[in-house]
Amino acid sequence: MSDEMGGRRARGGGGAARRADRTAVRQEFSRYIERNIPNFEILNEEALQIIEANAETVLAEIGVNFVDNPAALQRWRDAGADVQGERVRLPRGLARTLCATAPRSFVQHARNADRNVTIGGKGLVLAPVYGPPFVRDAEGGRRYATLADFRNFVRLGQMSKYLHHSGGTVCEPTDVPVNKRHLDMLHAHMTLADKPYMGSVTERSRCVDSVEMSKILFGADFVDQNTVMTSLVNINSPLTFDPIMMDALEVYAAAGQACIISPFIVGGAMAPVTVAGTLTQVLAEVLAGVAYSQLVRAGAPVIFGAFVTSIDMNSGAPTFGTPEAAQITLGAGQLARRLGLPYRSAGAFCGSKLPDAQAAYESANSLNIGLLSGVNFMLHACGWLEGGLVSSFEKYVMDADQLGILHRLAAGIDVSANGQAMEAIREVGPGGHYLGCAHTQANFKDAFWRTELLDYKPFETWDEEGARDTVALAGVRVKKMLGDYQAPDLDPAIAEALAEFVAKKKASVPDAFL
Amino acid sequence: MSDEMGGRRARGGGGAARRADRTAVRQEFSRYIERNIPNFEILNEEALQIIEANAETVLAEIGVNFVDNPAALQRWRDAGADVQGERVRLPRGLARTLCATAPRSFVQHARNADRNVTIGGKGLVLAPVYGPPFVRDAEGGRRYATLADFRNFVRLGQMSKYLHHSGGTVCEPTDVPVNKRHLDMLHAHMTLADKPYMGSVTERSRCVDSVEMSKILFGADFVDQNTVMTSLVNINSPLTFDPIMMDALEVYAAAGQACIISPFIVGGAMAPVTVAGTLTQVLAEVLAGVAYSQLVRAGAPVIFGAFVTSIDMNSGAPTFGTPEAAQITLGAGQLARRLGLPYRSAGAFCGSKLPDAQAAYESANSLNIGLLSGVNFMLHACGWLEGGLVSSFEKYVMDADQLGILHRLAAGIDVSANGQAMEAIREVGPGGHYLGCAHTQANFKDAFWRTELLDYKPFETWDEEGARDTVALAGVRVKKMLGDYQAPDLDPAIAEALAEFVAKKKASVPDAFL
Repeated sequence: MSDEMGGRRARGGGGAARRADRTAVRQEFSRYIERNIPNFEILNEEALQIIEANAETVLAEIGVNFVDNPAALQRWRDAGADVQGERVRLPRGLARTLCATAPRSFVQHARNADRNVTIGGKGLVLAPVYGPPFVRDAEGGRRYATLADFRNFVRLGQMSKYLHHSGGTVCEPTDVPVNKRHLDMLHAHMTLADKPYMGSVTERSRCVDSVEMSKILFGADFVDQNTVMTSLVNINSPLTFDPIMMDALEVYAAAGQACIISPFIVGGAMAPVTVAGTLTQVLAEVLAGVAYSQLVRAGAPVIFGAFVTSIDMNSGAPTFGTPEAAQITLGAGQLARRLGLPYRSAGAFCGSKLPDAQAAYESANSLNIGLLSGVNFMLHACGWLEGGLVSSFEKYVMDADQLGILHRLAAGIDVSANGQAMEAIREVGPGGHYLGCAHTQANFKDAFWRTELLDYKPFETWDEEGARDTVALAGVRVKKMLGDYQAPDLDPAIAEALAEFVAKKKASVPDAFL
Repeated sequence: MSDEMGGRRARGGGGAARRADRTAVRQEFSRYIERNIPNFEILNEEALQIIEANAETVLAEIGVNFVDNPAALQRWRDAGADVQGERVRLPRGLARTLCATAPRSFVQHARNADRNVTIGGKGLVLAPVYGPPFVRDAEGGRRYATLADFRNFVRLGQMSKYLHHSGGTVCEPTDVPVNKRHLDMLHAHMTLADKPYMGSVTERSRCVDSVEMSKILFGADFVDQNTVMTSLVNINSPLTFDPIMMDALEVYAAAGQACIISPFIVGGAMAPVTVAGTLTQVLAEVLAGVAYSQLVRAGAPVIFGAFVTSIDMNSGAPTFGTPEAAQITLGAGQLARRLGLPYRSAGAFCGSKLPDAQAAYESANSLNIGLLSGVNFMLHACGWLEGGLVSSFEKYVMDADQLGILHRLAAGIDVSANGQAMEAIREVGPGGHYLGCAHTQANFKDAFWRTELLDYKPFETWDEEGARDTVALAGVRVKKMLGDYQAPDLDPAIAEALAEFVAKKKASVPDAFL
């Protein structure tokens, strides 16, 4: 672990260095996870072949719809698909053949090269919650999210050492016009953090803006030749590709930028109620979506996505951390690996309204399964509450602390001579104590994962300190992290150009809230 | 799932049947888990061989101590060990050879034969928390446990459908003299529940009493020929077998009753700070303990135990749900399977003082890993709080609800024609809805695991109902389950004989609180 994690001060000029010295705040960060453990293979070869054959049948006989998208239909015709109206049927094997040009893994660059991530292979990149219109904290309760909230979540992400990615819509800044939000959101990720980030997907021009702003940040040539954004393209399950999402996929794929191509499934509503049926549909949808991305630009980086929840058949509510979601997450990972694509799934999902025990059970179930499923990109790895309606400040730091566990578990078991510890067992012998032995002294600093949040104090001490629960401890940590936060240095010319771009774009169109 | 779970009314005579009809309370129960999924194999063959070879070295060169136990030392001498003082050194291979007579799996009988459990193989038997001197509930706070608390936990266990085992010391009844507690505890398990239970281990005569009471309940011949108790024998790590625990092992093994032979390890204190070192010591200890059980009686049923926590190197507190504990749990499972023994580990462990998010994260981490580790007997599967100092009423029902997830996850993925759901995908097609389709209608009742505790309501409804957190919901459920509880019928002659045995034993010796 120690070789993967280093305390870093803010980089850059003398001012930053002096500031860092004065406050002695260390911005620690951890490199993305590289698994040294196997994946959990829940499906056997026979089951995998059944699902793969069924997915081909779905594509060949049922097909998928590309809605309001004549250019896409033409691309499909040219590629050999059977197109009737908006329905696209793919001959067996066509989608899988087209998918072969997508890279098995790719590097997403950050403006701080130390924070670059490789997405694919044995890697696991952790990114925060995406999309909620509400925020919650213990003091302010549940309320519509604002840009100020958004910026604070980006700051928390920058300060969270186990988070490798700054994410995208960490909450919806509802106080900013819909047609201008993306500018403020990208600006926040670009200036308040130096980790990789996601682009806008809500309208074609906003995707173009995302590329333009990235060119200001990285330089146009660099963006032309490298991947600097990973953006979220949802499939409108079942089997439907809507034009807004395809706009995003087309813009980003053409620009060599990465997309997560992700069925959005509430099992029983947008997919069959069975796990194998859902996996079949997920695979068919991803095959079609990834194949399409390669028609736009062969070699465009993409991720096999699977956002899956169960449904509560009493209320219709989506449910999280369930065994069915776990099985789908595990099975989809196998399908993604067989397809040779990076895999996105899991997250700190929960349905709970509060960051309470329900939230933690559900989130831990999903986080653990996500690691063992071979997930390469985990969106929603911290901060998700109430089925994705709420970004919770406290839960953000609670989940982010748990992410440290994934790092350690993934590192595997050290069986070096030091790991075997035979000298310690000899030294201590029957009935002895290990605390003082030489091996313990040499290893104890890095021996165990350490929480920065949870309480291990004796009952009496904890009671005297106010008998605080996890939420109360998390509230304290949120304030400390925001207080300690320092913006990473940014070339003033770039900062000025970004601000100017945002101001000009905002001035060029009237506000719209639709 | 449906074939494994059935609603049952209390069995027995007309009075019980009428009572059941009147109240319409269903005592559901679930058969023990039989995994239809693989185990997670974290160690490769080379690592396993290193650890196994090192464990033999520990036994041969360092040895183990059998304290204050001349008969054990004589047994070891007779078996070919090198005995110096209390130190027993085992030639390479001796322990493993002796272990070969222990059964790979065994049936523990319950007085209700429907509740019999098979311990070993692909099975997973779930048992509640064991040992805490304190209890906690939201109304009464944290307090010393009493016999009334004990009896209520046994009732909750009987009512918990995902719990297969009534357990043992679900809390310490501190209002009963130490030398008489075992009588009241066993009496509660035998009369208030009809699930399998554990025997006393705290003194040789109490083990004998446990066997005697079991003979009253099951009949003497039945107990002579069958296993009706599984009891917890801790090893005093490192490498020490104390006389009280060996008394228990000797009594139970001689009587053909099962013991969990379980190193009790706080990593860094009772074992090396490294995972591989801890696994080596655990294996050496279990090898010696199981070998000894087979010297007492070849064929005696035993379980390879591993109770492992990490340590917080700042405070010295044991820590739970950590990645190091997960790695040890996974690795020890592999070692147990290679030795051909049933495996005990994991549980709803946590260090938190409250049943809050910390408790749930830690517990869920351990429960998930326990399932994937191939654990066959999981003690502490519900109710554990504050590092095992407290049995929590609310957490008991919270954890017990989560145990349903393990059942479903373990059932694996159905790839039958119905599971494949191709007709549903055809029927619904692109852009449709699955809620109303024939396949969904036919399957929705059993399609998804259903909580009986967690909240999935819309925010507004939940808010109007008092914005209750998980603990508040759990408190309601505890009261409902205790209110709905009905004692399983018991032959009045047996009930009378048990009461008489307890009364006579209690009258025969003065109270002792040591």
